[in-house]
Amino acid sequence: MTDRIKEFLACNKEDGPRLVVDLEVVRENYLGFAKALPDTRVFYAVKANPAPEILDLLARLGSCFDAASVTEIEQAMAAGATPERISYGNTIKKEKDIARAYELGVRLFAVDCEAEAEKVARAAPGSKVFCRILCACAGAEWPLSRKFGCAPELAAKVLERAHALGLVAHGLSFHVGSQQPNPRVWDGALKASAAVFRELAERGIQLAMINLGGGFPARYLKPVPGVKTYGQTIFRALRKHFGNRIPETIIEPGRGLVGNAGVIEAEVVLVSRKSDDDPRRWVYLDIGKFNGLAETMDEMIRYPIRTDRDDEAMSPCVVAGPTCDSVDVLYEREPYLLPVSLEIGAKVLIEGTGAYTATYSSVGFNGFPPLKSYVI
Amino acid sequence: MTDRIKEFLACNKEDGPRLVVDLEVVRENYLGFAKALPDTRVFYAVKANPAPEILDLLARLGSCFDAASVTEIEQAMAAGATPERISYGNTIKKEKDIARAYELGVRLFAVDCEAEAEKVARAAPGSKVFCRILCACAGAEWPLSRKFGCAPELAAKVLERAHALGLVAHGLSFHVGSQQPNPRVWDGALKASAAVFRELAERGIQLAMINLGGGFPARYLKPVPGVKTYGQTIFRALRKHFGNRIPETIIEPGRGLVGNAGVIEAEVVLVSRKSDDDPRRWVYLDIGKFNGLAETMDEMIRYPIRTDRDDEAMSPCVVAGPTCDSVDVLYEREPYLLPVSLEIGAKVLIEGTGAYTATYSSVGFNGFPPLKSYVI
Repeated sequence: MTDRIKEFLACNKEDGPRLVVDLEVVRENYLGFAKALPDTRVFYAVKANPAPEILDLLARLGSCFDAASVTEIEQAMAAGATPERISYGNTIKKEKDIARAYELGVRLFAVDCEAEAEKVARAAPGSKVFCRILCACAGAEWPLSRKFGCAPELAAKVLERAHALGLVAHGLSFHVGSQQPNPRVWDGALKASAAVFRELAERGIQLAMINLGGGFPARYLKPVPGVKTYGQTIFRALRKHFGNRIPETIIEPGRGLVGNAGVIEAEVVLVSRKSDDDPRRWVYLDIGKFNGLAETMDEMIRYPIRTDRDDEAMSPCVVAGPTCDSVDVLYEREPYLLPVSLEIGAKVLIEGTGAYTATYSSVGFNGFPPLKSYVI
Repeated sequence: MTDRIKEFLACNKEDGPRLVVDLEVVRENYLGFAKALPDTRVFYAVKANPAPEILDLLARLGSCFDAASVTEIEQAMAAGATPERISYGNTIKKEKDIARAYELGVRLFAVDCEAEAEKVARAAPGSKVFCRILCACAGAEWPLSRKFGCAPELAAKVLERAHALGLVAHGLSFHVGSQQPNPRVWDGALKASAAVFRELAERGIQLAMINLGGGFPARYLKPVPGVKTYGQTIFRALRKHFGNRIPETIIEPGRGLVGNAGVIEAEVVLVSRKSDDDPRRWVYLDIGKFNGLAETMDEMIRYPIRTDRDDEAMSPCVVAGPTCDSVDVLYEREPYLLPVSLEIGAKVLIEGTGAYTATYSSVGFNGFPPLKSYVI
């Protein structure tokens, strides 16, 4: 919570939940990454929050952009990013979208299988591709499943095929899991990457780049290591596995750049109990899974919720959203401590909500509008 | 899948996923409910699909409407529903929204605690309220948790309080769980309801109405009993627990009215394997959890997916959406059988998608637009 956001909320009273993002925090975060990883280019993961003001600021600061779709490429370019500062980082692309990106000047594409490399070769001839590999992401609060990436052995084949098709086999990427609290997890992925580098070098293909992915955490309720610790730990792992021939590196922070820059102001709509002897209160807010807090899915992200009465006695609550949908419950398995005196109509502040909130909103489920967003 | 939808898709080729809803099916479903439960008024759960054409048709057919928000009340009224045909069925309402609904003429409100009854008494004086009770919803494919409703014992208190505040203590509601395959589940809820009716009668308050909720299933992959079976089973339970004094009843079908009326046409964006010996293919579609198929959450709703090659050899696939979000996987725990020859660029039809798809779409997560919707 920053003084600027406090002042904005105080001066602009309004009904309905709203997100306020403080650009000063985004700026500090960007400079923090630049300082902690001085030889690494930052590609902001646009999907985390594509608000034009955020993209404008980052473009001015010299950031590059990781785009998930043609729309995101266009958003980054509208903010002033030139196409060589944009990576089309989604491994799942329609060929017509690859063609459109190529037309816009984009020359860097993610792949994780031969079929995708073939699409890129046809629709964006001569471009650079990097292959995403699967890696263990133990410990991440938003683990990444096996949806993206292939086994490292297959990656060598995919890049060899890309090379044969006239593409530039540029490098590898991996992702250790979003909101990853353990910087040592990068070590295993870099070890596997170095093996692919060696294997391809033996076949005459020199890879040049490693995309270290995202995963840099925002601080929610639990403390997380600082970005400096991540930088040092990752650099040590690079040294260990690549010796004196450390490749070009890029990172793709999203949450780590904007997560802690945003605060949602919401309102308590109802406080009730299910029976006279119910030990837990139910606290219903005017925001839930369908208008901004989708990342509470399976109670994965636990946001700090602040009230005016946090110095008073607390008791366990189930926290739920406003829709007529029973899955729209934020915290139930592990109840949330909120002030006993919390009343209907009270405002609460949900911190750390700068990333993965506004654009996750549904278009109008239950007739509730998408989350309003202000960038200051 | 209907001939009308087939023809529409054939005559209107288009890129990108799209939902097509056949109004003839909605009409048949409505008439089916009216016939199976002739003494029960139908309140369409607007949240299932608020497309104006659907609301217009149902308004013309004489349907009433269950609204989750002021926006949905306004949508129903725009379709021609008079306010006495609208129930504000969300138990979680801001007082200003209750006041707005009252101003629009709505006089029927759901509550599940004293605090909500107090809001209604202040903002919508003299209105009818019904209290939602918790009930077992074992077997439902989309179970309802404890978010809505209170213990039946507490319901009697809530309604007594409403009565004391000058409201009309009108009745009870419950919900046996969405996509409920077992019509006998209503029996237990009606038994508990009858007990509340008796208890309040002893205190001089005559309840008049039971809202039997929704839960009527759409047919996805597994067969479900017909609506006639539901009507007969529920009527028998009403007889059993209320004898000759059966109260006024209403139902709130959403999925049951529009679920099977819709088909989504989507495209295969990528087919791949994670390693050379991966036994399962990954099939990525241009639709996923964030642009229409949110109900695949935890693999709860299993939609029929049809291809042009369903008579060929099949093999197990993981089915995933197009976004750069690792949770955007539709079916993985229980892989989906799809044709071995299924190729990138092929169109697939996802059936039973008329309810809880279009309005669940995110506003633009990853830059992907919300699901397009056509009602024919």
